[in-house]
Amino acid sequence: MQFDQLCMQLAIDKAWEFQALTYPNPAVGSLVTQRGKIIAIEAHQKAGTAHAEVLALLAAYEELSGETIEFDPFDANLAHAFLLQLPLGFFSDCTLYVTLEPCRHEGKTPSCASLLSKIKPESIVIAIVDPIPGHGGGAKILTTCGLTVSIGIKSKEAEALLAPFLIWQKRAFVLFKLAQTSNAKIGGGYLSSQASLRHVHQLREVCDRLVIGGNTVRTDRPTLDCRFSGGLAPDITIYSQQKQFDQTIPLFGIEGREVLYTDDLTFLEKPSFVLIEGGEGTLQALSKQIDWYLFYQTPKLSSDNLTYNIDKDLTFLHSDKKGIDMMIWSKERDE
Amino acid sequence: MQFDQLCMQLAIDKAWEFQALTYPNPAVGSLVTQRGKIIAIEAHQKAGTAHAEVLALLAAYEELSGETIEFDPFDANLAHAFLLQLPLGFFSDCTLYVTLEPCRHEGKTPSCASLLSKIKPESIVIAIVDPIPGHGGGAKILTTCGLTVSIGIKSKEAEALLAPFLIWQKRAFVLFKLAQTSNAKIGGGYLSSQASLRHVHQLREVCDRLVIGGNTVRTDRPTLDCRFSGGLAPDITIYSQQKQFDQTIPLFGIEGREVLYTDDLTFLEKPSFVLIEGGEGTLQALSKQIDWYLFYQTPKLSSDNLTYNIDKDLTFLHSDKKGIDMMIWSKERDE
Repeated sequence: MQFDQLCMQLAIDKAWEFQALTYPNPAVGSLVTQRGKIIAIEAHQKAGTAHAEVLALLAAYEELSGETIEFDPFDANLAHAFLLQLPLGFFSDCTLYVTLEPCRHEGKTPSCASLLSKIKPESIVIAIVDPIPGHGGGAKILTTCGLTVSIGIKSKEAEALLAPFLIWQKRAFVLFKLAQTSNAKIGGGYLSSQASLRHVHQLREVCDRLVIGGNTVRTDRPTLDCRFSGGLAPDITIYSQQKQFDQTIPLFGIEGREVLYTDDLTFLEKPSFVLIEGGEGTLQALSKQIDWYLFYQTPKLSSDNLTYNIDKDLTFLHSDKKGIDMMIWSKERDE
Repeated sequence: MQFDQLCMQLAIDKAWEFQALTYPNPAVGSLVTQRGKIIAIEAHQKAGTAHAEVLALLAAYEELSGETIEFDPFDANLAHAFLLQLPLGFFSDCTLYVTLEPCRHEGKTPSCASLLSKIKPESIVIAIVDPIPGHGGGAKILTTCGLTVSIGIKSKEAEALLAPFLIWQKRAFVLFKLAQTSNAKIGGGYLSSQASLRHVHQLREVCDRLVIGGNTVRTDRPTLDCRFSGGLAPDITIYSQQKQFDQTIPLFGIEGREVLYTDDLTFLEKPSFVLIEGGEGTLQALSKQIDWYLFYQTPKLSSDNLTYNIDKDLTFLHSDKKGIDMMIWSKERDE
């Protein structure tokens, strides 16, 4: 029984639930054990809010004390302040697992390494060190103050989790989203469950730009807003040589949104998060630019005609239930 | 943190790895904790071999003692005898989770309830009681001898796991197997990884009968053996009105195999495990008889033409990685 591996895998799986939604932050998961018993599993959910370690420690506090915290746990400043005023030794028989080295620097949120060096859990298990130049050093703060730190458990799986973050440091991370039945039919209107639709709208909300093919705009007449997640609709780039579109198509009616038309892809050189939605034509036209694919697979077999064709070897990165649907994260196979 | 739920879910997930392969036994998983720390997760793998609880206790023994057992852990008689000669109290600070009530009766293997009543773990957590008339009573043996038993955690998930077992008590459990790319292309020869192929061959080995459509036989000229799992090739029923087949098709060349031709499905009324392989025609012809679907999805997009059409609402039951592929267990949606 590889218990440390099990705990880290559970933290990694939790982090995948918020993959890309943490943009521009990395997806990170954390788990807390007390004398070997798992008492909390949490993940970072949204940039600017409390990090995974902090949410896991708050959940561990609730589990150990039987109390319910009465402030917003996503408010990092409140959360850090709360954890720092707990009696010294509160977490002294706890181990904290985290998929990425705790942050050293103060950004929108206080430093996690600094927090951990003060509350002193018994040990800290880290999957991978922070690979961004100038960002590391969190682990060193922990060892310097005498904490037991081990690094490298499930590092390969943690690297796969971190990959989008590393891409959007240097250029656009391009995610192609496709909703299909179990037999890959893509027509037929709303294929996906409410949970999947909400997830798509969360991705739209957090991305820098939503790219869509000109034919999809003409055929589907989409709105491309975020009504199921309640956020602001994304700016749109219509990938098309043709610049004439019927302005009564709903996507043009969203206030405050920028809509660009282009067939020049140099904008993808800029560090950003770009979501692509479309069908076969968009997929074929942009396939060289796509980093990852996100298939929402709905539990249905259909005899509709609309499917898609392209030749590409993939790797499955992760899959999850999302309501009644499955989400399958994939990328082109490296060979 | 719902720790008991987490442990039971891990046991259920483990059991799914051997779903249907345990025929005619149910798929069952088991997990052991010591003072809250997870120390073993195992599942029943094959009828006639040690049950899930026994394998989990053996793994827990290895974890706690640091010793390696030197007999075949799947030999139930050896395993029970070994566990019974351990010092009294060896598991007294352990909790055993099991997805199905421990068996009371002696069959090909000794009774698990009897074993547990003698080695006395601190407590036993059961997802569901044995629903087969005359099979229950294991939990009562445990409570009668003073053990703490709780029943009902993750019962819905455990029922889904047990469903094939309940079906093959009274008639054929019919599993339709399909290997497809991520965009549901089913041509192109060997789509699946070695791990998936081996799994298909394990299913063929354990089923009572493999049903295949006449057109698939003529077109694919299959062998339908178990060479990747090393077992005996299954008996075949070719579902076809036409009884004339080219006898040089490899499936006819397997020694000791029975090949029947029929278009009469009454043989499905008999308690058994029937595996169906085929394409669109077989699926359409037999769709009313299919209980579950097993999609092997290979990480590839293809522009091959061969796909399949049918209208059917499904429920996703479970998915797993199998080598580089995914296995998705589904059934028709009840509504």
